[in-house]
Amino acid sequence: MAKSKFEYVRDFETDDTCLPNCWIVVRLDGRNFHRFAEQHEFKKPNDDRALHLMTKCAQTVMQELEDIAIAYGQSDEYSFVFKKKSKWFKRRASKFMTHVVSQFASSYVFYWKDYFKDQQLLYPPGFDGRIVLYPSNQNLKDYLSWRQADCHINNLYNTVFWMLVQRSGLTPVQAQDRLQGTLAGDKNEILFSEFNINYNNEPLMYRKGTVLIWQKVNEVMTKKIKLPKESEEKEVEVTRTRTKVVPLHCDIIGEQFWEEYPEILAEDS
Amino acid sequence: MAKSKFEYVRDFETDDTCLPNCWIVVRLDGRNFHRFAEQHEFKKPNDDRALHLMTKCAQTVMQELEDIAIAYGQSDEYSFVFKKKSKWFKRRASKFMTHVVSQFASSYVFYWKDYFKDQQLLYPPGFDGRIVLYPSNQNLKDYLSWRQADCHINNLYNTVFWMLVQRSGLTPVQAQDRLQGTLAGDKNEILFSEFNINYNNEPLMYRKGTVLIWQKVNEVMTKKIKLPKESEEKEVEVTRTRTKVVPLHCDIIGEQFWEEYPEILAEDS
Amino acid sequence: MAKSKFEYVRDFETDDTCLPNCWIVVRLDGRNFHRFAEQHEFKKPNDDRALHLMTKCAQTVMQELEDIAIAYGQSDEYSFVFKKKSKWFKRRASKFMTHVVSQFASSYVFYWKDYFKDQQLLYPPGFDGRIVLYPSNQNLKDYLSWRQADCHINNLYNTVFWMLVQRSGLTPVQAQDRLQGTLAGDKNEILFSEFNINYNNEPLMYRKGTVLIWQKVNEVMTKKIKLPKESEEKEVEVTRTRTKVVPLHCDIIGEQFWEEYPEILAEDS
Amino acid sequence: MAKSKFEYVRDFETDDTCLPNCWIVVRLDGRNFHRFAEQHEFKKPNDDRALHLMTKCAQTVMQELEDIAIAYGQSDEYSFVFKKKSKWFKRRASKFMTHVVSQFASSYVFYWKDYFKDQQLLYPPGFDGRIVLYPSNQNLKDYLSWRQADCHINNLYNTVFWMLVQRSGLTPVQAQDRLQGTLAGDKNEILFSEFNINYNNEPLMYRKGTVLIWQKVNEVMTKKIKLPKESEEKEVEVTRTRTKVVPLHCDIIGEQFWEEYPEILAEDS
Repeated sequence: MAKSKFEYVRDFETDDTCLPNCWIVVRLDGRNFHRFAEQHEFKKPNDDRALHLMTKCAQTVMQELEDIAIAYGQSDEYSFVFKKKSKWFKRRASKFMTHVVSQFASSYVFYWKDYFKDQQLLYPPGFDGRIVLYPSNQNLKDYLSWRQADCHINNLYNTVFWMLVQRSGLTPVQAQDRLQGTLAGDKNEILFSEFNINYNNEPLMYRKGTVLIWQKVNEVMTKKIKLPKESEEKEVEVTRTRTKVVPLHCDIIGEQFWEEYPEILAEDS
Repeated sequence: MAKSKFEYVRDFETDDTCLPNCWIVVRLDGRNFHRFAEQHEFKKPNDDRALHLMTKCAQTVMQELEDIAIAYGQSDEYSFVFKKKSKWFKRRASKFMTHVVSQFASSYVFYWKDYFKDQQLLYPPGFDGRIVLYPSNQNLKDYLSWRQADCHINNLYNTVFWMLVQRSGLTPVQAQDRLQGTLAGDKNEILFSEFNINYNNEPLMYRKGTVLIWQKVNEVMTKKIKLPKESEEKEVEVTRTRTKVVPLHCDIIGEQFWEEYPEILAEDS
Repeated sequence: MAKSKFEYVRDFETDDTCLPNCWIVVRLDGRNFHRFAEQHEFKKPNDDRALHLMTKCAQTVMQELEDIAIAYGQSDEYSFVFKKKSKWFKRRASKFMTHVVSQFASSYVFYWKDYFKDQQLLYPPGFDGRIVLYPSNQNLKDYLSWRQADCHINNLYNTVFWMLVQRSGLTPVQAQDRLQGTLAGDKNEILFSEFNINYNNEPLMYRKGTVLIWQKVNEVMTKKIKLPKESEEKEVEVTRTRTKVVPLHCDIIGEQFWEEYPEILAEDS
Repeated sequence: MAKSKFEYVRDFETDDTCLPNCWIVVRLDGRNFHRFAEQHEFKKPNDDRALHLMTKCAQTVMQELEDIAIAYGQSDEYSFVFKKKSKWFKRRASKFMTHVVSQFASSYVFYWKDYFKDQQLLYPPGFDGRIVLYPSNQNLKDYLSWRQADCHINNLYNTVFWMLVQRSGLTPVQAQDRLQGTLAGDKNEILFSEFNINYNNEPLMYRKGTVLIWQKVNEVMTKKIKLPKESEEKEVEVTRTRTKVVPLHCDIIGEQFWEEYPEILAEDS
């Protein structure tokens, strides 16, 4: 069984190295999540359990893999941004993509019960992923803005749509017809006049999605110690600084966010 | 929030269509499975629970995704072969890779308890994947032969290595030294003379790995029916033909396998 | 002037290796040759000087570069087929493309005067090129058939079009209108009934384009020798076998051509 | 002859679009120019005719093709830099490469006689090309610095080498041995002490290579006009502003060049 005789097949692998000095974005999407949401009775238009589970998985991805500077998620998608200078796995595109989606997928099942309690997971879900390179900081910011603008547009639509269905008793088709051709202002008006809802008071997580960044966090722990000359153990408070993945639900389209967290785009980050 | 202003970022996505008329192979590997195996107390050199779980996940991948003609697995890796003519997701490489690894990873956690019983899963595992194209049937067969030859070489080594450690009490370093420079014949001889083991009698699953193919299966079911003029229900046997993913542990290097299952490589498959 | 400080820029070069075991086709096209043809007073619909010059350049490309098995040309385009097993320049796509077009372009100017005599070359022409891989012999034959079918369709159209313009005195727009929506049969009929031309008697080079293949050729040379015992030089005939690039104007869509020259597609060619 | 039956082969063409917002560099090299130089009796270490012809060809490339912001050449190579925002041919890599090398190659033969006078061109030369993307201005400047540093290093070596051969009568092997392991300072010293040559007084074109940029040029032309009320024609001077490709032989490694010509890197250029 001469393995060497067959090893020529390795030459068919192609090099998929990402261009250096570009931001590497991997975006993951749930596969057939419309159906998945129905079968698992997700609340409409937003299910907190599902959103928090997505974020838990994304945090796991950031902690387990290398060089992710920021992530952004909404609905059943999450984007992970690897640093411009990352040399993780020699910048091979397939490594980035498959590590992200496999870690996310296994985490989704692993942490499911922490968020969905007695709602049983019926089958293992699938996800897909793609990779895109952005040469400049502006390109990257525009990418993230694109996803957040998409979150806003979809969430405003879904909020009105489900109000019409759940509260006004319209059928989905009727609700769709009603919203056909309406602008953002029209939708805000329907929410306010018909349902007494000020869209701007809706939860930030729904309207802005979730941004994950690395933050230094001071953790205060109580620790039992026994001093040499004392007979009893004593509790003391210990402060430790750790770098953690922290979720934010804020605007990332304007400049303010980037001014507040300049380290995200810093060249040597 | 003009989404359209940012949408230019979509132009940065590149086309990763696979060349038509080639076999598309996605190979998945466990990430840090050496450590994972230790922490979950896998039996050495082969853990039946782990191997069967891998195969269960691979079966799920074949059933959930489209156009997989054959799969081959050993240890912590699995290769999936998509048909030459597949047009699934327009043959986009990223779709193939990420669907395979995410479905596999979520299935691994989902089905874990069916195979590992009271052995708790400690954390969500990761997998990576790569994609390779093979233009000719011979290239594809040589690829699969390469993986099966690799299985054989590793398994023979591991079988002797763990015998030396487990039965003769050598340290891993001593066992490694003992095997340094030995040929296949030497290893067979050690197994036979020192441990009374005929390597050829070792389980086929360990020696050959696992081949997954589609097979027509006749399923006989008993069904209760009530005929019009009878008062009682009656049990009848119903035979149904289904296409299922079936595991085999056979040689795929020689021609016999391919002659027995010509449909796998059939042009119109 | 520390060169090494800047050498990191080499890492930005990407690997463009062609998949092994595929036919590599480079197709070259004249840039703005419509205008070029007018300015150099090419005869319409076919200019023998231009066609023969194209073929001379293609022959030069085949002789200068490695591993070209066959070439096919028509109008201002030429396709070069590199062998499946070629390892020329490690199968780098950029090398194949640029060597073909640069050798062709320099040859076009170099040999111009041999074909166009006192028609002066007014400016250096440009060409573009692309590369395509074909995994199977059938794919390759279909590619070449596609180009030859294109040659036929264009040449039939052009033959009628220019007859209507040159002989019937139609303006180009009138000729175009006349041919709008006509089928091949209609065009043959116009040629025959209005111009007494049987299209099938038109020169093969116009109707079929030019195929370039390698052929063993016996060359008979006369050589002057002086035998030891004779006082006079004597002329003798010497036969030498050489492999040359030979132009053919034959059908390559049917099987006959490939049966006659099996060595072109031979695996070990 | 159903062309449509074969047209599926077009699907085998792959998309080779260059990532947006990156500088696109095409570098061209002479093929076997060592041999070409010998056969055409190039002067050593630098042949002005050959260098000027290279630059004439590069100017033609810049004028004929779109969106080239700057070019740099030395010896038998030339690099062409396309603008970050260029959308020429949808940024297809093959189009950039093949247009550059084919236009260069045809120009080389076309303009040969203007530079080499009675030195006959013996055969059509070949060139190869490659394409590289640079995301940032700094990357691009470092690329050009890399080529200019290479020019300096080679030219210093060649200048000493050929002095040793031409003036001191060393064989090439002896000259090579003599220079083995010498640093720049050593080579300068040999030139000065043995040949009374101050390397810094050598022509800039040899030491710095050639930079091609676009410059607004005022051209003064004399034009004959005939005013209405006068009987005689009269000569007048007309000044016209044109944008031309201008050769420079200056340092491009330091910042001064880029400060002097900020428009080259300007975002909207």
